Amino acid sequence: MRALFLNGTLKPSPETSNTGALAAYVGDRLAEHGVEVEHVRLVDHDVAPGVVSEAVRDGDGWPALHAKVVAADIVVFATPTWMGQPGSVIKGAMERLDALMSETQDDGTPMAYNKVCGVIVTGNEDGAHHVIAELAQAAIDVGFTFPGQAWTYWNKGPGPSDAEYLTSDEQEWTHSTGDAMAHVLVHAARALAAVPVPKPPNA
Amino acid sequence: MRALFLNGTLKPSPETSNTGALAAYVGDRLAEHGVEVEHVRLVDHDVAPGVVSEAVRDGDGWPALHAKVVAADIVVFATPTWMGQPGSVIKGAMERLDALMSETQDDGTPMAYNKVCGVIVTGNEDGAHHVIAELAQAAIDVGFTFPGQAWTYWNKGPGPSDAEYLTSDEQEWTHSTGDAMAHVLVHAARALAAVPVPKPPNA
Amino acid sequence: MRALFLNGTLKPSPETSNTGALAAYVGDRLAEHGVEVEHVRLVDHDVAPGVVSEAVRDGDGWPALHAKVVAADIVVFATPTWMGQPGSVIKGAMERLDALMSETQDDGTPMAYNKVCGVIVTGNEDGAHHVIAELAQAAIDVGFTFPGQAWTYWNKGPGPSDAEYLTSDEQEWTHSTGDAMAHVLVHAARALAAVPVPKPPNA
Amino acid sequence: MRALFLNGTLKPSPETSNTGALAAYVGDRLAEHGVEVEHVRLVDHDVAPGVVSEAVRDGDGWPALHAKVVAADIVVFATPTWMGQPGSVIKGAMERLDALMSETQDDGTPMAYNKVCGVIVTGNEDGAHHVIAELAQAAIDVGFTFPGQAWTYWNKGPGPSDAEYLTSDEQEWTHSTGDAMAHVLVHAARALAAVPVPKPPNA
Repeated sequence: MRALFLNGTLKPSPETSNTGALAAYVGDRLAEHGVEVEHVRLVDHDVAPGVVSEAVRDGDGWPALHAKVVAADIVVFATPTWMGQPGSVIKGAMERLDALMSETQDDGTPMAYNKVCGVIVTGNEDGAHHVIAELAQAAIDVGFTFPGQAWTYWNKGPGPSDAEYLTSDEQEWTHSTGDAMAHVLVHAARALAAVPVPKPPNA
Repeated sequence: MRALFLNGTLKPSPETSNTGALAAYVGDRLAEHGVEVEHVRLVDHDVAPGVVSEAVRDGDGWPALHAKVVAADIVVFATPTWMGQPGSVIKGAMERLDALMSETQDDGTPMAYNKVCGVIVTGNEDGAHHVIAELAQAAIDVGFTFPGQAWTYWNKGPGPSDAEYLTSDEQEWTHSTGDAMAHVLVHAARALAAVPVPKPPNA
Repeated sequence: MRALFLNGTLKPSPETSNTGALAAYVGDRLAEHGVEVEHVRLVDHDVAPGVVSEAVRDGDGWPALHAKVVAADIVVFATPTWMGQPGSVIKGAMERLDALMSETQDDGTPMAYNKVCGVIVTGNEDGAHHVIAELAQAAIDVGFTFPGQAWTYWNKGPGPSDAEYLTSDEQEWTHSTGDAMAHVLVHAARALAAVPVPKPPNA
Repeated sequence: MRALFLNGTLKPSPETSNTGALAAYVGDRLAEHGVEVEHVRLVDHDVAPGVVSEAVRDGDGWPALHAKVVAADIVVFATPTWMGQPGSVIKGAMERLDALMSETQDDGTPMAYNKVCGVIVTGNEDGAHHVIAELAQAAIDVGFTFPGQAWTYWNKGPGPSDAEYLTSDEQEWTHSTGDAMAHVLVHAARALAAVPVPKPPNA
């Protein structure tokens, strides 16, 4: 079983990414369940704006990432919060995933059927529930299944501050929720692997 | 296998509900899969504002509906669109469902685990995707699993109009999408019944 | 100049409302600017589900509140956060306000033109920015003007807790932001009173 | 008086942009009111991911656009709809605008105070109201004033299709609403120019 984490931080490597750090925590939990885990920092891959799986210009990093999504059983969308909303980088990846709607597996089943997904959010302020709503809806639109409570987040409030996940002494709820997230992702993925949803009537 | 449709129309019976009509269409498809289907029009049940499962005042209709949710394998949230957003009546039901977060099944598994849900939206104007986002996130928060593409909708645009689902001659996409919705709901519910997600580590 | 605060707490009087307490703070600041301030706790007024200004059933509390909205220069929408979203009670009031779209002032100007609005949010968890987005969009839809930064909020995180605005020792940012909210509301209302937006070409 | 249109189409020039076409329509109406209008297609300007006004890497197109925003009295955010949500390109611009929160005019007033903004949305499907909500909230966060009904949109439904604004024979509501949008933008901008909101107490 394979899991892919798409990290939508705005900061290119090697800058520290709080979002990447929380993704690493949850990825380690999935690995303990025997899942093969890969992390991608999107901003390092020059993903072009667009809505197709193929390259839209020279150097477009998306086609290689599309192949990783296709190969994964579990996809986790991780993003910082800006103005209470998902960041533009993860949004750019979701737009490229829009193309999955017209792609199918060998037997005609929509490409994302029987794949499960989850969301990780960090921020120095309010917004996680809404970020989860936006990313869940977009992923469900293209066929991913979102298991109950397959998310975790870290932020603080009220108001903006310099607080951040990595240096916070309030990580306990975030980690406990992340442990449960890994648990439901792996078990839901196993259920759909054992008893898959077949091709729908309108396929 | 049991399915419960919660219809959040603002109009009490016996007024015609376009939302109820589209819910009936999808319910009939679930019945064809052998599912036992029940429809509830929330506004007829005097649901009090609140966030607990128990009655919050005399005549509060929620406790009886809570029992139906607990007994269901599939719950469908159906609502009209007002100002591009979910209606207040379905929102009131979601708030009562917040209490599921601290309720468990006999073995300690969170109450909504291994239940699946979907969304039905009607409107005379734009808003369905966002309504799906709001209801999906709230349902996922309390533990429901949202299978890929387990929704359908009807609306028109651009701008408001007198058009409505029941009298429209453009129902084909809505019905085809509703057929697929019933298909994924029943198959995902079967997968989670056969190979259920067990109690998570933070339970 | 008149300001109306619509408090969408789910709790009937005389229960303590954190949302009402923060609304009172901002109302007091408006009063210091010479504004006549009125607070309404919606749940005490038996507002029926619906989308018209007139009573939709016996005892419907909305028509009296509609008259207060029409008489106000400043309307503040105050609500608790549930599941990261606006509460159902304030949503019910927004739906009734939908009717303003087809009502006009004596000279044919849309009813809500030259009225300004703001938002107050409380919660024990994440969600304020999204609540502001939902209520701002609905109010703008029907014609209210939303001045820059005309909002304040209080919540905590990460994760749910028993923390609340009234007993918190972290009120400073919330109050400072509320001071600015009162300032921009009163100044923007004065600007639109002095140089009002006239009837639009599509009226 | 100056108006700046930021077009968030995903398609680089010289591809046809429906969003740009509707922005041109509203821009022409503003010009009839005597406003000096400039249109920018963001994707042509190599805007880097980030949250500051200064260049974050070589060739970053944002600093020049930031200067245009600062010089404008009216800013219109125009975007296509993807999965019912704002596109990633306009989101990237909003993130750069986050920096306005700590910038001020010569007299200490927050940079975006007394600037007004509006939103234009196109799409082949549902989503405009939510796009307006997201962009309105982000713009209000940093200090822009959003006048009542300062938006217009074009889309179709139910379901996706090949329909588009430019070739549609249903442009009338969109244009009439766009006429009103230009009207309220120019009149609200004049009101705030004549009677500006001064520096707030927390500045």
